Amino acid sequence: MKIRGAPAIGIAAAYGIVLALENFLEQEIDSPYRYFFDQNEEVKQFKNSSVKIGDMRKVTLEASHVLEQTRPTAVNLFWAIGRMRSVIGDESITQPLSMARRLFKEAVDIYYQELDQEFAIGEYGATLIENGMNILTHCNAGGLATAGYGTALGVLYRAQEMGKKFSVFADETRPLLQGARLTAWEMSQRDIPVTVLCESAHPSLFAADMVDAVIVGADRIAANGDVVNKVGTLGLAVMCEKYGKPFYVAAPSSTIDFSIERGDQIPIEIRPDEEVTFYNGKRTAPPSAGVYNPAFDCTPAELINAIITESCVITNPSRNDIKSMLEGNS
Amino acid sequence: MKIRGAPAIGIAAAYGIVLALENFLEQEIDSPYRYFFDQNEEVKQFKNSSVKIGDMRKVTLEASHVLEQTRPTAVNLFWAIGRMRSVIGDESITQPLSMARRLFKEAVDIYYQELDQEFAIGEYGATLIENGMNILTHCNAGGLATAGYGTALGVLYRAQEMGKKFSVFADETRPLLQGARLTAWEMSQRDIPVTVLCESAHPSLFAADMVDAVIVGADRIAANGDVVNKVGTLGLAVMCEKYGKPFYVAAPSSTIDFSIERGDQIPIEIRPDEEVTFYNGKRTAPPSAGVYNPAFDCTPAELINAIITESCVITNPSRNDIKSMLEGNS
Repeated sequence: MKIRGAPAIGIAAAYGIVLALENFLEQEIDSPYRYFFDQNEEVKQFKNSSVKIGDMRKVTLEASHVLEQTRPTAVNLFWAIGRMRSVIGDESITQPLSMARRLFKEAVDIYYQELDQEFAIGEYGATLIENGMNILTHCNAGGLATAGYGTALGVLYRAQEMGKKFSVFADETRPLLQGARLTAWEMSQRDIPVTVLCESAHPSLFAADMVDAVIVGADRIAANGDVVNKVGTLGLAVMCEKYGKPFYVAAPSSTIDFSIERGDQIPIEIRPDEEVTFYNGKRTAPPSAGVYNPAFDCTPAELINAIITESCVITNPSRNDIKSMLEGNS
Repeated sequence: MKIRGAPAIGIAAAYGIVLALENFLEQEIDSPYRYFFDQNEEVKQFKNSSVKIGDMRKVTLEASHVLEQTRPTAVNLFWAIGRMRSVIGDESITQPLSMARRLFKEAVDIYYQELDQEFAIGEYGATLIENGMNILTHCNAGGLATAGYGTALGVLYRAQEMGKKFSVFADETRPLLQGARLTAWEMSQRDIPVTVLCESAHPSLFAADMVDAVIVGADRIAANGDVVNKVGTLGLAVMCEKYGKPFYVAAPSSTIDFSIERGDQIPIEIRPDEEVTFYNGKRTAPPSAGVYNPAFDCTPAELINAIITESCVITNPSRNDIKSMLEGNS
């Protein structure tokens, strides 16, 4: 949990594989990292070393297996690792230096591609934000969770850049308070008016007609449009249905896992009890009590008004074919 | 917030008026408290003192005005203070000692009446609890919030006494964690299996069909059956509606305020920002963020399957006449 947020996890895994390679190469070569990107540097040291490309493949593949075990839910992790493995397994790469440079380039590409996608998501999503709106978001799907701009929050940033005025409700997002700690901070940094509340106060906001729309990110989206995201997301979608407000999900299309048919088939990470029973070192529940602490929940597609991707806005994902909409716009 | 829970607040206010009287009498009489209840004690000291019944009325009335300002939402406070004021204003009481004893007796009566009502609520409510049920409760409506047995939790205690086996989900109840700190502790004391969760995990429980019923207390109920209770209650009622589970409220009939037609007319206490932005002395949100921290919300009667009182179970309060049901059973 030092790194969180689906896009950030994917990018970190790609760079993690590069770091594993760098650590390995350091045994043979002084400052191996500079060879990754300096085309003009004499590569004698690399060529004179006894580094074998087979060992490089082995070390990076091992690192990819370790990284794969860190978080089960966000698909970006597996997607980014999959891209790195394609390079690791590419038999057309025969030189150690080429392999190092190709792996580094792949990680950089993943990072820039994610960032570009976030800008594109912001562009599409900002059309849904109107002047004077009060927008509720959950957890943190901003720069601190992504390549640096944000998915759900990127939409708000783009709307702000377009001159739209709106205010944001950021729920605190128990147990780890990403909403209070991260989203409220990001909003404050950009001078977007933000109000923090406990999740328990969501229904009051809806009942008092103080929310015009909800926008969240996603950790994994099934082929049918069901969205797995931070626990509590489902409750907001149910509130939107009950009170007739739009519920939006902002995520790159790489978050959609077409290998999984329905959201209830996506594994949900169960986090440690102590996240709930301790806070800031102080126990908050009796030791004899059990704990239920899922990190994510699944929102069925029929509760979602739109999934905002980098290539199109998928409206009513339960009634539209997601794959053909994406292909029609790619 | 040293005393919380609607019934406990009412009882504490009644005893608070007695304490104000005792403090006043101590200026004139040694250990005045013993005269309140010892019928055989020589009352010479009282008679020889210069205490005037008019001053006693003034002091207790003043105390009642101070106590009335402490919490705006729970009706039990105003109900208990009203009963004490009836005694204070009773012109048939002419002797200082009689006034002292009558006020003390009224506070004791309020306490025992509440306790009796809690046992009766438990008796009615336990019929709704079935073997093997998983029951979700919110905040704390147990012995720590009442005369000592509980309203919502009294129902569970009575069911346990009748030999029923069930398990309880206690949400932590942000921001003050009454569920994790108090309800989970009460359950543990009585060996009822209890699992603590964040409010954000409610929807996951319902989606996984892990909850069979929700039972909560109430701070004030309007004449039409709308229930004001701890913030977050409305969200649970909406979840019950969405997932087809029963939603029960357990409260003495004194919680029903027939002078208020609808729940949205009941004042909702707004609590200090710091309850949300600090925890255990540590800041959890940026200082520039606003805070929305209502202590209660209002659940419309049509989302409530039954209100369990000491004299009857009011089923479907939105479709039945609450007053006539109570009168028919009193």
